[in-house]
Amino acid sequence: MIVAPERGLKPADFGREIRPALQRNCPLCAGNERHTAHEILALRDHGTPVDGPGWRVRVVPNKFPVLRVEGSLERWGRGLYDQESGIGAHEVIIETPHHDRTLADLRVEEIRDVLWVFRARLQDLQRDLRFRYHMLFKNHGVEAGAQLDHPHSQIIAVPEIPPQIATELASARDYFRRKERCLLCDIVRQELEDRERVVLDAARFVAFTPFASALPFEIAIYPRFHSHDHTSLSDEDLLHLASAIKDVLSRLRATLDAPPYNLVLHGAPPAHPRPGRPGIWDSLRFDWHWHIEIVPRITRMAGFELGSGFHINPVVPEEAAKFLREAALSSPAG
Amino acid sequence: MIVAPERGLKPADFGREIRPALQRNCPLCAGNERHTAHEILALRDHGTPVDGPGWRVRVVPNKFPVLRVEGSLERWGRGLYDQESGIGAHEVIIETPHHDRTLADLRVEEIRDVLWVFRARLQDLQRDLRFRYHMLFKNHGVEAGAQLDHPHSQIIAVPEIPPQIATELASARDYFRRKERCLLCDIVRQELEDRERVVLDAARFVAFTPFASALPFEIAIYPRFHSHDHTSLSDEDLLHLASAIKDVLSRLRATLDAPPYNLVLHGAPPAHPRPGRPGIWDSLRFDWHWHIEIVPRITRMAGFELGSGFHINPVVPEEAAKFLREAALSSPAG
Repeated sequence: MIVAPERGLKPADFGREIRPALQRNCPLCAGNERHTAHEILALRDHGTPVDGPGWRVRVVPNKFPVLRVEGSLERWGRGLYDQESGIGAHEVIIETPHHDRTLADLRVEEIRDVLWVFRARLQDLQRDLRFRYHMLFKNHGVEAGAQLDHPHSQIIAVPEIPPQIATELASARDYFRRKERCLLCDIVRQELEDRERVVLDAARFVAFTPFASALPFEIAIYPRFHSHDHTSLSDEDLLHLASAIKDVLSRLRATLDAPPYNLVLHGAPPAHPRPGRPGIWDSLRFDWHWHIEIVPRITRMAGFELGSGFHINPVVPEEAAKFLREAALSSPAG
Repeated sequence: MIVAPERGLKPADFGREIRPALQRNCPLCAGNERHTAHEILALRDHGTPVDGPGWRVRVVPNKFPVLRVEGSLERWGRGLYDQESGIGAHEVIIETPHHDRTLADLRVEEIRDVLWVFRARLQDLQRDLRFRYHMLFKNHGVEAGAQLDHPHSQIIAVPEIPPQIATELASARDYFRRKERCLLCDIVRQELEDRERVVLDAARFVAFTPFASALPFEIAIYPRFHSHDHTSLSDEDLLHLASAIKDVLSRLRATLDAPPYNLVLHGAPPAHPRPGRPGIWDSLRFDWHWHIEIVPRITRMAGFELGSGFHINPVVPEEAAKFLREAALSSPAG
C-alpha cells in the first residue's frame, strides 16, 4: 500500500464515491498553464514561451503526487511490518491542448508525438537510481479512475518493482531459463497461428485479446519483434505503434460505445544494478518483451474477485476479438 | 480467468456499466420462492413447506452459476496455455426474508443464524473432493458488484486454490516453518499491543484496520484464539462472531454513510488430500488462522493499481480506525 496523505480525505469526503469536481477551468487546457506546476518537458512551436500556450504535448508534475521526489530511500521495520520512505516521481503527460479530443481522436502523427514524450520522460527518469520501476498508464473516463477529463497519461516512478510486474517478470524469466526462448515471443507466435484472438495484425505490431482474459474486451498490443526495452524504440516504430494504438482504441470505441478504459505499459525495469546486487536484471534483454494492455472498465470487481484473485469474464476473448475485428471504423485508422 | 458463457453478453449489453435490472418481483423475497431453484437448505418455522414462505435464512443454487456442479474435473493444454473444466458450485444464501433490511440491521441472533447456515453449507460442500476451495463472500450495494438488492451472500466452490488465497497461505506457511508460530496470531498480538488500528476488542474476536491497508476503511475480523478451521467454530463462538460483525458493519455505516462493501471469508482450504499429493495441507491446523475482511467500495481502481498491484490509499489505517472507534452507533451493538 502507498499512503498518500496529501490526498488525505475525511469520512465525509466519501459520498457514494469520489467524483472529480466539475472542471470549470481545466488546468490542463492550453491557456491555463498557470494552474499547473512548471513544465518538465513540452513539444512546442518555435518561439512560444515555457509555461505558456503553443504546445502540442506537455509534461508537468502531478499536483497531488502519490510519491515525493525529494529525499533518500530508507527502509525500516515496525514489529512484524515493513515500511519504506515514499520516494518517487509522479508526472502528468497532457496529450493534447484540446479538452474535447480523446487519444483515439488524435492523428497518428499526434499520437506519435505523445509516444515520443513518453520515451523521453522514461529515459530521463531511468537515470535516477532510487527508482526501480516506472509505471506508465492512462485513465480514460471517471469509471477508469480519471480525475480530470482532459486527455492525459501519468508516469509514477516507484522504489520497488510492483508485485504485479514482478510476477510477470519472474514467469518470463523462468520460461527463458528452461527453454532459452522468450515466453512472450512464443505467445505472439501462437496467437498469430491461432488467429481467433487477433484484433490487429500489422507490420510491426500485433494486437490480440489475451487467452483467458481477466476482463471482457481486454486487448494487448505487442511488438512482433523481440524487444525488452520500450525506451529504445526507434522513431519509425513509434509511428507504427501510434497507428496500432489508434486502430485498437477506435475499434474499442466503435464496439463498446466509447467505454472508459485503462491503458498500461508493461515495460522492463531500468537495467541499472541494485545496490549490493549488481546485474540483477542482466538477462532482461533476452527474457522480457514489453507490451501495452488496454482494459475497458465495463464490469465491476466484486467480493469474489477481490478475495480470490480469480476473475469472472462474461465474454470469451475469442468472441471479443471477433467483435473488435468486425468493428465499423468511421475512418480508416490513420 | 473463469469463463461464464451462460452470462454471455454482447457488446450492446455493456452501456457505461452493467446495472442490475430494477427488481419488480425480487426473487429472494419471502413469497417469491417459485422464482428461485429448489432450496438446498433453509432455517424455517416448523410445519412450513419446502420452497414456500416461513423461512429465516434460505440457500438456493445461483440461477446464473459461474461454475457448474455437474461433470468431472479435467485439465488440458492448448499450446502454451492451460485449461480446465469449469466445475464448481455456486450457492446464494438469502440472509433474511425482508427485502429492506441489511445484514447490519439484523439482530445478533439473526446474524448468528446466517453464520450457522454458512457453516452448514461449507461443511457439506467440503465433502466434494473435486473442490479445492470455497469462497464465501458478500456483495453489498451495486458499487460492490451486487446484482440484487435483497441481502444475500454467496459461496463459490472452485477446483483450484485461488491465487490470492494461495499467496496468503504460502506466506503464513513460510513464517510458521521459520518460527514455529502462527503469523496471524503474531499479527493479532501486535495489533492488540499497538492498539492504534484496533476497532473492536471483544472477548473472542478482534477487529482492526490492517497495517498498510490497500483500500481505505478496510477492516479485518480475527478470532483472538488460534483457529485454522472456520467450519469447526462452536455455536457459542458463532454468536460472538455475529456480534462482532454487527458492531463493525454498524460502525462502517455510521462513519461512511452506508457505503457499499464486500465481505470475504479468508478460510482454510478443505483438509482432504489432493490426488497424488497426499497430506499437502497437513500443517494447516498450525499455520493458518481464518479471518473475515470487510472492504468498503468507496474508491476506484485505476490504471496504476491494475498494472502494478500497488494500491494508493488516501486514508491511513490508523486514522480510519480512529473514526470507526468513535462512530456514534444509534443503538448498542446487539
